[in-house]
Amino acid sequence: MSIQLQPEVQPVQQTQVQPLWTRKHLLGLEDLSADEINRILDDAERFRLQTQDGRKLSVLSGTTTANLFFENSTRTRTSFSLAARRLGGDVIDFSASTSSVSKGETIIDTAKTIEAMHAHAIVVRHHTPGTPHLLSQNLRCSVINAGDGPHEHPTQGLLDIFTIRQHRQKVAGLTVALVGDIAHSRTARSNIWGLKKLGAHVIVCGPATLVSKKWETLGVEVSYSLDEILPRCDVLNLLRIQFERQQTRPFPSVREYVHLYAMNMARLRRAKDDILIMAPGPINRGVELTPDVADGPHSVILDQVTNGLYIRMAVLHLCIGAGKRGEA
Amino acid sequence: MSIQLQPEVQPVQQTQVQPLWTRKHLLGLEDLSADEINRILDDAERFRLQTQDGRKLSVLSGTTTANLFFENSTRTRTSFSLAARRLGGDVIDFSASTSSVSKGETIIDTAKTIEAMHAHAIVVRHHTPGTPHLLSQNLRCSVINAGDGPHEHPTQGLLDIFTIRQHRQKVAGLTVALVGDIAHSRTARSNIWGLKKLGAHVIVCGPATLVSKKWETLGVEVSYSLDEILPRCDVLNLLRIQFERQQTRPFPSVREYVHLYAMNMARLRRAKDDILIMAPGPINRGVELTPDVADGPHSVILDQVTNGLYIRMAVLHLCIGAGKRGEA
Amino acid sequence: MSIQLQPEVQPVQQTQVQPLWTRKHLLGLEDLSADEINRILDDAERFRLQTQDGRKLSVLSGTTTANLFFENSTRTRTSFSLAARRLGGDVIDFSASTSSVSKGETIIDTAKTIEAMHAHAIVVRHHTPGTPHLLSQNLRCSVINAGDGPHEHPTQGLLDIFTIRQHRQKVAGLTVALVGDIAHSRTARSNIWGLKKLGAHVIVCGPATLVSKKWETLGVEVSYSLDEILPRCDVLNLLRIQFERQQTRPFPSVREYVHLYAMNMARLRRAKDDILIMAPGPINRGVELTPDVADGPHSVILDQVTNGLYIRMAVLHLCIGAGKRGEA
Repeated sequence: MSIQLQPEVQPVQQTQVQPLWTRKHLLGLEDLSADEINRILDDAERFRLQTQDGRKLSVLSGTTTANLFFENSTRTRTSFSLAARRLGGDVIDFSASTSSVSKGETIIDTAKTIEAMHAHAIVVRHHTPGTPHLLSQNLRCSVINAGDGPHEHPTQGLLDIFTIRQHRQKVAGLTVALVGDIAHSRTARSNIWGLKKLGAHVIVCGPATLVSKKWETLGVEVSYSLDEILPRCDVLNLLRIQFERQQTRPFPSVREYVHLYAMNMARLRRAKDDILIMAPGPINRGVELTPDVADGPHSVILDQVTNGLYIRMAVLHLCIGAGKRGEA
Repeated sequence: MSIQLQPEVQPVQQTQVQPLWTRKHLLGLEDLSADEINRILDDAERFRLQTQDGRKLSVLSGTTTANLFFENSTRTRTSFSLAARRLGGDVIDFSASTSSVSKGETIIDTAKTIEAMHAHAIVVRHHTPGTPHLLSQNLRCSVINAGDGPHEHPTQGLLDIFTIRQHRQKVAGLTVALVGDIAHSRTARSNIWGLKKLGAHVIVCGPATLVSKKWETLGVEVSYSLDEILPRCDVLNLLRIQFERQQTRPFPSVREYVHLYAMNMARLRRAKDDILIMAPGPINRGVELTPDVADGPHSVILDQVTNGLYIRMAVLHLCIGAGKRGEA
Repeated sequence: MSIQLQPEVQPVQQTQVQPLWTRKHLLGLEDLSADEINRILDDAERFRLQTQDGRKLSVLSGTTTANLFFENSTRTRTSFSLAARRLGGDVIDFSASTSSVSKGETIIDTAKTIEAMHAHAIVVRHHTPGTPHLLSQNLRCSVINAGDGPHEHPTQGLLDIFTIRQHRQKVAGLTVALVGDIAHSRTARSNIWGLKKLGAHVIVCGPATLVSKKWETLGVEVSYSLDEILPRCDVLNLLRIQFERQQTRPFPSVREYVHLYAMNMARLRRAKDDILIMAPGPINRGVELTPDVADGPHSVILDQVTNGLYIRMAVLHLCIGAGKRGEA
């Protein structure tokens, strides 16, 4: 991390908007084309180069991004806030516990009220799949999906893919395994759709209670043995076991899970020399991976966090810009 | 909503302060003259023209506005925050649950502590009527009432009146009915005082348990039948039934209330062609009004939200400016 | 308080960094030299002169300060936020209740995640002594201790000493009594270390259950009678009785405590004519001191609050600057 005190004042300059991007909303990666995904990744890379020294840009000045989170998430919410502010935009936060939704207001009315305060983008997280889609059909401002139940979490998928591309200079042809709680994971879905479109081979791997054979219909390989697939993998994305979400335990014991699926030094030695270890976080040390792997040279977990800023800059800039031009 | 990416930099220019305004605090509309109310409305209109494209002004730069809310209200708090920030001011948020008040500190000491951090205005919401008045007597900075129990909510009254003036180009001579829960409504009180001063005819209408004859002493018409007064009304302001506030139900059933007082399409057909439908929100769809009315062409509910920004810009600018000039 | 609307734009100017300061972290006053403490006080005085009219500086532009508070404290958190923002820095807030720590993440991982979002300083409050030290050993960004259990609260100690110096033009040779709950007070510890280094005579005074003889090993006088030491004191710092913290009551009754240790007008008459009355707040009126003393001419309690801003400006600027230069 490079610290830049007192950067020179950034001249207000028109970002050249390429003709490709026409979406006002980002609802999921399932709908995007490979070109659209690459456009986001390219823009994110450009923002990385421009802002990694702490410099603020002004391409979103005069805009307001509203966070409307019905599930707690300091991490994702803060990432969106910082992304907007570092592009010169303003940010407002709404949370379920204090908002009018607790007074019986519908979520559409809440969102329309936020829009009426001149919000240009609403970043929404909700436990019900499809909530962002519902809002997008009822609002004129941009809607960004920050997680809709177990369905999609597109900016997480994009930052994961961006991190892979950053370390491998490509995505096509790589073998990427998503390990663990596939069933409850919106991160898994967004990764699968995004990675497949860019030409990666995707494996989902975990206990049978969390990994269904039906995933094969998405063109994904299904495995129940990490040890079996490990030697072939270029990237492991170790999904979080969401203890706080599951009503019933989907495996006999944490110890059993760790024995079969935790990434540890012994497994790392049987992996490719340049394997990337990813995890969307927050991680359970000792569950999805051991501390020596989490803190070791193969781990790019903190790069994922940093890259989340650049991805969200790109997404906010593209979608708000499309809204400005009157795109649907 | 017009989106303005990268507005041109706003030159710092001295707003010409007309001699009329001398108040450091805004505690309620009961105390204001018609001239003072019109001054706020005129300034709000000026700020609307200057900022509706997303442009930020700098007339409050170097000032800090503190939100001190003892009741949850994302909507009003956010509106004040955005108003201050769009005029270049800084904002800090205090909430009752995390503030020192929970450690036994008096509210005056809490407010003085905030003032000592160089706050120029404290925006206060409290369930006890008169709290803003108490603070104004003990602080040197501006105090803005954002709702004191069932007493007053002056910026809500002002934004309602502003919205009427915006759509009718006048207030005097109009017939405005406040419908519903008059007894518990600070919005009703602020509207009554403001509308009467500007020459409107005001009707309060609702079940006898929520509308007392004593309102006539304020020069207001009292009615228990919406159907009876409807043909004469230019504006209906449908006050929220605050289910979360009432200990006992003030009417036999919600169905009974809806039957007698909900605004629906059948009633709309018997109203004036250009009737304005207002509601302070958050609305209970199907209670105060039906969805087709809420979303129909007569509804200006979302205009009210947007106008709240401009009213709060005007109020903060006038009151902080008066404090700067040493006004009482 | 002077209100400055529309200050002239502050030219970006390089603050001349004196060679003395080499610390990236501020963990406590125990570790600092007298020179280092004086450097912070001098910088705070400079920031006071530059910003007391509401002017914002830009010496921290391009930096992000993150508040990571595991105990509620609107007051301290807001003071740090305003300090950073008035120097042009950005601020993000994390709280224990909504952060990933509640999902089983370790505090080091939480802090590393914040750092990965390009935070340059993490301001941490935690109930466990040593938490800031732990983080400082695991992060590359600056760590500022905002209170670690009963151990230290260095910026509180600094702002207390700054306030004394402001009113007495010196610290050396003064007699300063810390009165009340010494045992649980991080403020007491930070004051003792700071005041001793600058040459003050320090007395700790309170009931034997809250004041141990072992304090004498720090070169501090121990007293159980406020009345006995009162005539000799130049400064009384009345520590808060933290009713919310103590499992068992450390004195027979509040009335007993008030009788022996509360500062009241009768006691004030037997004190030096120019005695300073301080309290870190939030104060319990009628417990540590009576209202007439709290609001009287000897009280500098609100000056302490204001000075907290300048101290935190100085600390953030020095530590972030040291981090930028690659200091340890």
